[in-house]
Amino acid sequence: MTTILPSYLQGAWWTPGGGAPGLAGDDGGAASGTEVRDASTGTPITRVSAQGADLAGALEYARTVGQASLGELTFHQRALLLKRMAQELTARKQELYDLSAASGATRADAWIDVDGGIGALFTYGSKGRRELPNAQVVLDGPVENLSKDGSFLGRHVYTRLPGVAVQINAFNFPVWGMLEKLAPAFLAGMPTLAKPATPTAYVAEAAVRILVESGLLPEGSLQLVCGSVPGLFDALRLGDLVAFTGSASTAESLRAHPAVQTGGVRFTAETDSINASVLGPDAVTGTPEFDAYVKQLVTELTAKSGQKCTAIRRALVPAALADDVIGAVEKRIAERVVLGDPRAEGVTMGPLASQEQRAEVLRQVGRLVSAGGELVLGGLDQPTVVHADGSRGAAVEGAFVAPVLLRFDDPRVEAAHTVEAFGPVAAVLSYTSAAEAAQLVALGGGSLVTSVATHDPAFARELVLSTAGYNGRILLLDRDDARTSTGHGSPMPHLVHGGPGRAGGGEELGGIRAVLHHMQRTALQGTPDLLTAVTGVWHEGAAANADGPHPFRKPLAELRIGDQVRTPSRTISLDDIEEFATFTGDTFYAHMDEDAAAANPFFPGRVAHGYLLVSWAAGLFVDPAPGPVLANYGLEDLRFLTPVVPGDSIRVALTAKQITPRETDDYGEVRWDARILNQRDELVASYDVLTLVAK
Amino acid sequence: MTTILPSYLQGAWWTPGGGAPGLAGDDGGAASGTEVRDASTGTPITRVSAQGADLAGALEYARTVGQASLGELTFHQRALLLKRMAQELTARKQELYDLSAASGATRADAWIDVDGGIGALFTYGSKGRRELPNAQVVLDGPVENLSKDGSFLGRHVYTRLPGVAVQINAFNFPVWGMLEKLAPAFLAGMPTLAKPATPTAYVAEAAVRILVESGLLPEGSLQLVCGSVPGLFDALRLGDLVAFTGSASTAESLRAHPAVQTGGVRFTAETDSINASVLGPDAVTGTPEFDAYVKQLVTELTAKSGQKCTAIRRALVPAALADDVIGAVEKRIAERVVLGDPRAEGVTMGPLASQEQRAEVLRQVGRLVSAGGELVLGGLDQPTVVHADGSRGAAVEGAFVAPVLLRFDDPRVEAAHTVEAFGPVAAVLSYTSAAEAAQLVALGGGSLVTSVATHDPAFARELVLSTAGYNGRILLLDRDDARTSTGHGSPMPHLVHGGPGRAGGGEELGGIRAVLHHMQRTALQGTPDLLTAVTGVWHEGAAANADGPHPFRKPLAELRIGDQVRTPSRTISLDDIEEFATFTGDTFYAHMDEDAAAANPFFPGRVAHGYLLVSWAAGLFVDPAPGPVLANYGLEDLRFLTPVVPGDSIRVALTAKQITPRETDDYGEVRWDARILNQRDELVASYDVLTLVAK
Repeated sequence: MTTILPSYLQGAWWTPGGGAPGLAGDDGGAASGTEVRDASTGTPITRVSAQGADLAGALEYARTVGQASLGELTFHQRALLLKRMAQELTARKQELYDLSAASGATRADAWIDVDGGIGALFTYGSKGRRELPNAQVVLDGPVENLSKDGSFLGRHVYTRLPGVAVQINAFNFPVWGMLEKLAPAFLAGMPTLAKPATPTAYVAEAAVRILVESGLLPEGSLQLVCGSVPGLFDALRLGDLVAFTGSASTAESLRAHPAVQTGGVRFTAETDSINASVLGPDAVTGTPEFDAYVKQLVTELTAKSGQKCTAIRRALVPAALADDVIGAVEKRIAERVVLGDPRAEGVTMGPLASQEQRAEVLRQVGRLVSAGGELVLGGLDQPTVVHADGSRGAAVEGAFVAPVLLRFDDPRVEAAHTVEAFGPVAAVLSYTSAAEAAQLVALGGGSLVTSVATHDPAFARELVLSTAGYNGRILLLDRDDARTSTGHGSPMPHLVHGGPGRAGGGEELGGIRAVLHHMQRTALQGTPDLLTAVTGVWHEGAAANADGPHPFRKPLAELRIGDQVRTPSRTISLDDIEEFATFTGDTFYAHMDEDAAAANPFFPGRVAHGYLLVSWAAGLFVDPAPGPVLANYGLEDLRFLTPVVPGDSIRVALTAKQITPRETDDYGEVRWDARILNQRDELVASYDVLTLVAK
Repeated sequence: MTTILPSYLQGAWWTPGGGAPGLAGDDGGAASGTEVRDASTGTPITRVSAQGADLAGALEYARTVGQASLGELTFHQRALLLKRMAQELTARKQELYDLSAASGATRADAWIDVDGGIGALFTYGSKGRRELPNAQVVLDGPVENLSKDGSFLGRHVYTRLPGVAVQINAFNFPVWGMLEKLAPAFLAGMPTLAKPATPTAYVAEAAVRILVESGLLPEGSLQLVCGSVPGLFDALRLGDLVAFTGSASTAESLRAHPAVQTGGVRFTAETDSINASVLGPDAVTGTPEFDAYVKQLVTELTAKSGQKCTAIRRALVPAALADDVIGAVEKRIAERVVLGDPRAEGVTMGPLASQEQRAEVLRQVGRLVSAGGELVLGGLDQPTVVHADGSRGAAVEGAFVAPVLLRFDDPRVEAAHTVEAFGPVAAVLSYTSAAEAAQLVALGGGSLVTSVATHDPAFARELVLSTAGYNGRILLLDRDDARTSTGHGSPMPHLVHGGPGRAGGGEELGGIRAVLHHMQRTALQGTPDLLTAVTGVWHEGAAANADGPHPFRKPLAELRIGDQVRTPSRTISLDDIEEFATFTGDTFYAHMDEDAAAANPFFPGRVAHGYLLVSWAAGLFVDPAPGPVLANYGLEDLRFLTPVVPGDSIRVALTAKQITPRETDDYGEVRWDARILNQRDELVASYDVLTLVAK
């Protein structure tokens, strides 16, 4: 008899009735659990149960121990841990591949799941250090000046939610689904309680085991509960968050819980949707776009056996091209798709995850047929498959379904836009105009993704502008990106994943956007001094320290926000302007021709070059001798505000604004607030100077 | 008998039974409606009913006619209309003041409502033109390169939601509440159906009438329905949005509707919350912070008679200062607050909006008393007030409540953090440590705003970091902003308004953030050419036109995205570097000292100044003669990527990236993509050049 899959709760592995010390245990019925079988052979693998788990205790452990341990780390420190976790999983990914085969995943499918998940960790490990400060607060948008004298400012900040991120994952991607949710929560500083779907929980458990064994996880930052958790939501409260992936109906029942409806628990859902792929009218047979469209459609039908939230369910094609598309899909499948046990050589498409899934898919295909769908490829019969030993034969215990294509005469029939067969199933629907194609896309009621195969910019623009409101992602496929496209069905960690309406209404991934979904945006109002103290970023008008040594002489560890250099002034002559023009070649009339310059609406006459001003400013503020300042690597938000005419003088105030030590280098970034003023104290230019400074 | 207040539906004024042509009418019971009375005198003012209104027709009118008319306009054109609407309301604001007095609003209260609402229109009119492109799509974040060769990119865009924005407003600010919701929806391009609260619907109706009479409203962009609308949500669908302000219980019942739960209708709520104001331990009696705290507390008790979602309900004070605070509040109220009919000279605090509100407030005060609250100021008795004729006497028909302060011995008693008396009522609660103060703030279950009066940066930082997760806004009050602070209770259009949990979980305002809440974020994937076509912004790698005349010779109307100049190259010598150093004074060692430069981890030896490179680049790409290019007003996102050593050559590719014609000037902004390359085609520097170009 198989054993029960453990959960990882409150820092220890736990099974029903055999709980770790200090955790509630309950033997009643726990010995049974839900049995999980091999998708190809039907052999029992494990049993799954969380009966008796102390869920309220696990949540409170996360809110206290997990919040505390993550709260000691900055964004960069958490990001670095994500990178190391990704490295650890990479080193042991074969273990995950091996387990995945039992779930019906081919090697290519397992690559999407395992390497895709690891890739999400790497992306957040990298973006967290490149795009977030090495701090715990994220600033959002510029300062809003709310007073005439600058004494009262507004600024938006993001701080992490004070609770636990409960992540409920789907069965189809046990590793990717868990890691793509874990990464942004972890980076934000929120502890995670992950709940994998029962049919593939054993793969998720293996991934968590690798992470636990790595010793990299801060205490309480990740817990795993395998099995059903009926009372979980009752223990949630304001500050907690639920990220759900799965069916629309489950999302609906979870969202209706009082914890979400009135308790303030943030709830996001990513549900499978009836995604469309549109073939442009220009993409006729023989064009690279036609070929790319067909190839992508076959990929989406067969990858993970069509068990993807993002798979193409509706192929929208110009009426005249429908037969060609069906023929080309049939031909490609006949040539390339080998259905069978993923452990057999040459198999390119595995079974569904379970017999239950197979029965459900066939039931939905039946509904589509009843609604008028004509089966033009595949069918409801038990297919012939390749067994693990290489023999061909009927799929006796395996959950196999061959690719199915249906065709509807009426493209608006409701079932084609609302019934989902979560397997290798798609419908071909014809359209006659771009407007009709857009209407058909919208009939899906909100989708994760729509793709458009076209090389016609006008068609692409029309489709995007008329359907973007119904989509979380739109992929434009043509001859120039057919080879490099990451594919209709592949969410990228850089881009938002989610969609309105039927797709769940949530957003995941999208780089740092997903981190911010785990944080609260708060408007702060106060003086420059207090906003500086709270945010750790210097605000114009706050106290500055211009008394000490030149700040370029201070290594990163000694430099403080507000350290400042105020330069002497330097007068600009007409000769200077001419010399600069000659040297640079920039003889723009505003600098060279008094009459033409005076005729310009913005200048009183000849003015100094903006580049002269910033160059001289550097000459004024730079401390030239070798020291901790290593390089000026850039400049941001430069605005020229007051023209400088011959005879004017300029001086500079340069103030350390933000200090970002790097975790793995012996230097860091310093952002300096630079302001050039003239002899009347008018602001001539303002900008941020970006430097690298040794620790 | 009073008449029934009209609604404005499908482009016409409508009343029950007397509907405009083409609208459904229904006389049954419509003649009655809900009677609204003067808050001070009880005199009937109007009756409110929407019985028989064709709500489904109104929604569809917005989705078709309203979407179409707003869709013809760009963000700048819409913003300009908002500004003109604000001007029109300003010219006729006395009409709104006069009506407001009947609702119990003093002149100061009406100023908050009327001028505050107009101010929101002005702010969006201004921000829309300064911070959004003159287009219909908003780009979000940078390009994500998803392929090694740059042929497949990702980019996020916002497009408007395809439906109608239903805005359900509260009774306390009939003008501000309507306009602060209308402005961002209108700017996003979503038509509005506004539903004012019955007690003050007549003020909202007057504001809409002014807007309609102005002729500025695009057809279908604004409709108004006065009266209860029980079937409204049944007619909502994906692409529509509901923005609700009001009680938490109403928000709860609306949110539970299937249109929201499963239909994909976006729902945001802003509900009144149990906001806290914290007196810092440093702010002892006699400090400016103590005085500012007391002054603010009295303002929040009395402004709009405490009928504000943002009013202070919990005064959290160090235990040792509680008596002082209560005494100072009592003294200030005795000296300054005159309760009465707003039409009487000298009155500084009016009645509540209705007798129903008064009864409800007294009922909640009773609950607070039952829970242990000691009445230390004011009470449940009928107060003496000033009547419109200047006489003093009992408030017979008026809905008056004098300011009430309660004190609780146990600061954690649940009622103090959950029971709201929506009137001039606050509770004084003591704390003994910063951590306890933060815990008490959190007990409110999520607030719109918390204020902290302190001059201690460490206390400010601790309070913000421990409570920001529970607040939409935090105001830091001290001696330096006491005079310039916009106040605890005043949402600013620049800053987000809303909060987690009890505060409704939504966000309004926050400048452009609120516009984006009316749009769908979509990840676009495709080639540089197609992303350029769809977004109207040139993407690196897209086709460019370097064949025509120099793009600086083209006026704005002729310039096209992708117009480009590719310059010849210019070789940099050591003499050039030395000349630039001498001229600018920038003798940083990396430019001047071969050995020191070579010892730097980033440089092979002496390198050219970054400022020299961008100055020479301008010399290379500028076309100097007078022409349409008027000025270089700034530069963004400059990064130095490859050092340039003596003997290297540089050249520039400058490409028109984004063109933003101004609506009210004869010029506009052009953003140019600038790339400096060396003789090995390595990218030396990249940045955006910002110019003003004549039309």
